Amino acid sequence: MKRFRWGMIGGGKGAFIGGAHRIAAKIANSYELIGGVFDVNFERAKEFAFEEDIDLKRVYPDIDAFITSENKMPSSERIQVVSIVTPNYLHFEHAKKLLSNGYHVICEKPVTLSSTEAVELKEIAIKKGLVFCLTHTYTGYPMVREMKRRIEAGDIGVIQRVDAQYLQGWVNPIIHGGNARLSVWRLDPKVAGISSCMGDIGVHAFNMVEYATGLMVKEVLAVLSTLKPENTLDLDGNVLLRFDENLTGVIRSSQIATGEENNIQISVYGTKGAFHWEQENPNILKMMHEGAPSEIITPGYDYLSSFARDSHVLPPGHPEGIYEAFGNLYKGAAMAIRGEQTVPGQFPGIDEGIRGMQFIEAAVRSNKEGNRWVSI
Amino acid sequence: MKRFRWGMIGGGKGAFIGGAHRIAAKIANSYELIGGVFDVNFERAKEFAFEEDIDLKRVYPDIDAFITSENKMPSSERIQVVSIVTPNYLHFEHAKKLLSNGYHVICEKPVTLSSTEAVELKEIAIKKGLVFCLTHTYTGYPMVREMKRRIEAGDIGVIQRVDAQYLQGWVNPIIHGGNARLSVWRLDPKVAGISSCMGDIGVHAFNMVEYATGLMVKEVLAVLSTLKPENTLDLDGNVLLRFDENLTGVIRSSQIATGEENNIQISVYGTKGAFHWEQENPNILKMMHEGAPSEIITPGYDYLSSFARDSHVLPPGHPEGIYEAFGNLYKGAAMAIRGEQTVPGQFPGIDEGIRGMQFIEAAVRSNKEGNRWVSI
Amino acid sequence: MKRFRWGMIGGGKGAFIGGAHRIAAKIANSYELIGGVFDVNFERAKEFAFEEDIDLKRVYPDIDAFITSENKMPSSERIQVVSIVTPNYLHFEHAKKLLSNGYHVICEKPVTLSSTEAVELKEIAIKKGLVFCLTHTYTGYPMVREMKRRIEAGDIGVIQRVDAQYLQGWVNPIIHGGNARLSVWRLDPKVAGISSCMGDIGVHAFNMVEYATGLMVKEVLAVLSTLKPENTLDLDGNVLLRFDENLTGVIRSSQIATGEENNIQISVYGTKGAFHWEQENPNILKMMHEGAPSEIITPGYDYLSSFARDSHVLPPGHPEGIYEAFGNLYKGAAMAIRGEQTVPGQFPGIDEGIRGMQFIEAAVRSNKEGNRWVSI
Amino acid sequence: MKRFRWGMIGGGKGAFIGGAHRIAAKIANSYELIGGVFDVNFERAKEFAFEEDIDLKRVYPDIDAFITSENKMPSSERIQVVSIVTPNYLHFEHAKKLLSNGYHVICEKPVTLSSTEAVELKEIAIKKGLVFCLTHTYTGYPMVREMKRRIEAGDIGVIQRVDAQYLQGWVNPIIHGGNARLSVWRLDPKVAGISSCMGDIGVHAFNMVEYATGLMVKEVLAVLSTLKPENTLDLDGNVLLRFDENLTGVIRSSQIATGEENNIQISVYGTKGAFHWEQENPNILKMMHEGAPSEIITPGYDYLSSFARDSHVLPPGHPEGIYEAFGNLYKGAAMAIRGEQTVPGQFPGIDEGIRGMQFIEAAVRSNKEGNRWVSI
Repeated sequence: MKRFRWGMIGGGKGAFIGGAHRIAAKIANSYELIGGVFDVNFERAKEFAFEEDIDLKRVYPDIDAFITSENKMPSSERIQVVSIVTPNYLHFEHAKKLLSNGYHVICEKPVTLSSTEAVELKEIAIKKGLVFCLTHTYTGYPMVREMKRRIEAGDIGVIQRVDAQYLQGWVNPIIHGGNARLSVWRLDPKVAGISSCMGDIGVHAFNMVEYATGLMVKEVLAVLSTLKPENTLDLDGNVLLRFDENLTGVIRSSQIATGEENNIQISVYGTKGAFHWEQENPNILKMMHEGAPSEIITPGYDYLSSFARDSHVLPPGHPEGIYEAFGNLYKGAAMAIRGEQTVPGQFPGIDEGIRGMQFIEAAVRSNKEGNRWVSI
Repeated sequence: MKRFRWGMIGGGKGAFIGGAHRIAAKIANSYELIGGVFDVNFERAKEFAFEEDIDLKRVYPDIDAFITSENKMPSSERIQVVSIVTPNYLHFEHAKKLLSNGYHVICEKPVTLSSTEAVELKEIAIKKGLVFCLTHTYTGYPMVREMKRRIEAGDIGVIQRVDAQYLQGWVNPIIHGGNARLSVWRLDPKVAGISSCMGDIGVHAFNMVEYATGLMVKEVLAVLSTLKPENTLDLDGNVLLRFDENLTGVIRSSQIATGEENNIQISVYGTKGAFHWEQENPNILKMMHEGAPSEIITPGYDYLSSFARDSHVLPPGHPEGIYEAFGNLYKGAAMAIRGEQTVPGQFPGIDEGIRGMQFIEAAVRSNKEGNRWVSI
Repeated sequence: MKRFRWGMIGGGKGAFIGGAHRIAAKIANSYELIGGVFDVNFERAKEFAFEEDIDLKRVYPDIDAFITSENKMPSSERIQVVSIVTPNYLHFEHAKKLLSNGYHVICEKPVTLSSTEAVELKEIAIKKGLVFCLTHTYTGYPMVREMKRRIEAGDIGVIQRVDAQYLQGWVNPIIHGGNARLSVWRLDPKVAGISSCMGDIGVHAFNMVEYATGLMVKEVLAVLSTLKPENTLDLDGNVLLRFDENLTGVIRSSQIATGEENNIQISVYGTKGAFHWEQENPNILKMMHEGAPSEIITPGYDYLSSFARDSHVLPPGHPEGIYEAFGNLYKGAAMAIRGEQTVPGQFPGIDEGIRGMQFIEAAVRSNKEGNRWVSI
Repeated sequence: MKRFRWGMIGGGKGAFIGGAHRIAAKIANSYELIGGVFDVNFERAKEFAFEEDIDLKRVYPDIDAFITSENKMPSSERIQVVSIVTPNYLHFEHAKKLLSNGYHVICEKPVTLSSTEAVELKEIAIKKGLVFCLTHTYTGYPMVREMKRRIEAGDIGVIQRVDAQYLQGWVNPIIHGGNARLSVWRLDPKVAGISSCMGDIGVHAFNMVEYATGLMVKEVLAVLSTLKPENTLDLDGNVLLRFDENLTGVIRSSQIATGEENNIQISVYGTKGAFHWEQENPNILKMMHEGAPSEIITPGYDYLSSFARDSHVLPPGHPEGIYEAFGNLYKGAAMAIRGEQTVPGQFPGIDEGIRGMQFIEAAVRSNKEGNRWVSI
């Protein structure tokens, strides 16, 4: 059998992100959904399994039942890789149990609630020789990958300015519209962790910055805002980045940028040229040059790096979207699980998870301690 | 079992359009690929099936073997619906045999090589009570569907101008680059039919015009170009449209518009407002108003028609692409096969196929007969 | 004195096009407004002159008074060049009288009501050795000029497709809103001539086609629409163009494209590359390439042709607009009047006026005679 | 005479910004250039005057000669208003002498080298009852003015996020290309003052923020970069803004953003909606709404505020540019000099100059003192 026996924790009926994982897995063409813990409501979990033609015996009420039962199966039948699509605060427990029991893991971000937990997961994964894939989906876009490769190749020279943003507006009606605040788990510290805006989306921008540039942020200086005193977690903020003595940057992020949908952008300026990319029109990569016309780079061409070419199947002008970017991560994880050679940036792993948690922690701390520089 | 037992004719290894059908079917979540005639090369067909975890007994060397074997299976195991992804000249034969033997059909366009053949298919499908879906993929985009619904609802008043284009440049290097001409089947009349540019892509623009406006074109006046005498089929052309006494329009189409990728656009102007849509950035629908700001309509919002809402799963700002548009057609066909209620425009059928063939025939005839008006 | 003594016929108070000419003349820095026939209402003409600090003795009630008085002045005081900004039907009479009396002329388009009249003007201008500038303003944009030069230089190879459009919506509320029709002189055949849409704006698109490509249109096939029987003149239309055996093109033009502002676009496709330009964002010229990224060409760079460089004063990113394009025509006319060397395309002259009238006449005739090909 | 007798200090031959002032003044139609100190090279100044038809007796070798001579003229002949277009370090001296002697002043920014100097200018201007106009040109764009009016009117509710940028790349080749550094006066502290990037362009973004929002920035936290130790002044930086407890913002500015031309943008997010504007395509104002389509607002419509309508002469779709924005400032200054009623925001004055200097000083100090918050 060519496809991995695949399981899910969370992501059942009505969870759009669960559906996105399934489509990504199908596009990757290497995963067959066999079982899982699809829902906290067991009946609903079974309904979901029925609709998906999944054997009801492989539907489990919780993670422990999953592990106990699957562990008993012969290795030729046992689920091999599991995707974790639960609320943030459960990621660590679920990932730890799965890794400890020998399952490859594909996990939603943020990977854990703290960097310490993330480091612990890394140790287990290494010890067990397992693949851990963290779904920083936006790194799966072909034009992001082209940007990464060209920066690696020195096409824009030495980097001298980095700008990233992740702007959304969806929290705006919630906080202004009445008492809906508590029903949204991302705004609840017990479920979401120490940060809303930076933890949920700022961290994507941070990941994009390190992914595209290949550089490591050394320090951050953050100014975060809850907008109103009654909001516990940050909903908006600007985080200054320091890479080294001469290179700084900035991440702007908001969940109350009214009218913004999912507006992730990055600009990287070098001594010789620059790149600009926008997620809402993801098949365009703008390359700027010193004293020469800007170029509009699009998928599907032979002139692209093999990494970008392999990340887009269709000919030029046939817009692939976010599911396909997501599918590229699943494809990368499948390659790693099969022991195939992967290339740098093929999929985000636990290291990216640790970096992300360190970023969130440093940003929150910088904000609390008077907007001072905090090391990552 | 919830998913249909699904077969394919054509579309094996290396055929990007075949891969697109499979991803569309997976996104629709209602089809399980069980067997088919994947390749003219039977060995390669089996390799493909092996990689796709398909039972090799359901891999057939040709359409007749397919039908003979499948017909013998109990109805609970027999393939239920078949996608035809072969070169144009085979569509009719394959569709006719499949429909005659009781298989639902999903067919690539152009549906046949003549409107007479298309009419014959329609008669069989009606007689047999079968679903016939023609993959005019672009009608699956949520913003195209929103445009259609708003025009139906009278939001732009009475239509007074229609502009459509489908511009590509891919044939350019073939015809200028040497003797590669014959290797490209779309330029060979025996395989492609009576037209290249109008038959392959102009017909998409024509379908988009009738789909979006809800109007029927009555006459066309075409000027087609082969660019060079040695090219047999048209590679470029402009087709004037007449809807009625006061309403005309134009379709511009080219395969030698150097540098164009897959540039389909439509503009529909009414007495009260107008729409403009571009396939290469498909999640934007521009609505223009008399003396008021234009609006940028995007997927994922409650304010959209239920048809558009149902055609885009993810929240605003998460760009779905052409596979998802394609998946929407497969979803529509699945609803029809299950006998569920469909809405107007849910998927293109044999009627759209007949219209398309009539358009191609009329355009070619108008061009041959001195660029005169020819009725459709 | 460095600036020409300049006069105007028409263009007084409240005429936006007259104001545009004055700003263009000021930007060109070579014209001083000395006198003219500013208004059919002589009192209003004097009010205008007073506000503009113009000597009231040089304000004339009509063209004959203008000529009689100015002719009597010593040549060192006499007005040297005159801009004609009157309704279409008066252009011929005014231009003829001015040229016959030795005045250089800058004239709004359409130059006359017939090509015969335009030819007559040409003969007088040649005989008298005078400059005649026709304000096809859009040819003054630096990026249009860059496109022209690059096409001349063979940068896109042999042209194989031409698309142009000029879409406006301003007539829409007039024809649907009641009895305002007659008050708008552009819709009145006595004032506007034989065509509204083609005569007023289609002719700009035609001029742009010949200007940018350097080619001559040989034949046209037009389908024009009055939308409603009670409208006398065309308000919308599509005109197919034939350049030679293998090259055709199309001009789409409308005054009832609801919501469109002043949407002029041109695309020229060659064997090696292509250009696309849009007037509403005029400082961007898109150059498309075979199998390579598109380029975004903008003003202010050394890499541009000297013609484009000379047509934009400010550094990159400082958007000059339509007044500056207009100013470039006035600059070109000034160079010609001074006897300086001009370059091809520096300003449109009477030949462009003749071509434009021939285009309008051929389009109207083609439409009347059953949409047949008519030679220009 | 309706036009003011106008003089210039600086701005002679070869100074593009001087040419821009002259075109702006011509567009405003209220200024006649009579004399000035056009150049440090007196011969070149006279050549310039000759070419511009300016009486050579009104060409002066320096500011003192200007004042001495003009003061002796009868008030009906004396220059009334003077534009200062000299390098930064001379603004204060020139403005002080002119104001003290009763001349209205139009001054390039930054107004002075320190806020103390700017305050001194304000005191003189008030005492003398003179108009002082500071050319923050970008506030003259009609769509910026529409944004300002709509924010004032509460159309987007209470502001909760502000983002501004001013990115250029022109310094990049200078600092990487060899020893050209000293020849560029903007990088020389003696001529340019304490800051290059913030002083030259960041201050425009700051002005835009306060202009558009109507809010005052209370504190800034700046991280500035010279990129290399040998550069004395900042070439790049990010400045965090604090308006009050709950509202922060950020200004990003760079002169080494390779490939950027003159990329000023601002986004203002409120509880009910948001605005986004980009200088390089200035005739588009994007208005975003909570749960409704974005709107594209353009000039020339009746639905606009009277302030925006009065700031754009031509009909929709006729792109006016930066000269016209500049001309709107000159128009505003002329209204004020005539004693006519002006509206808020009609032109920037000395108060905006003081604010700008305070911003530059606070940003430089914050950066020097460890990136701490500094009050403005």
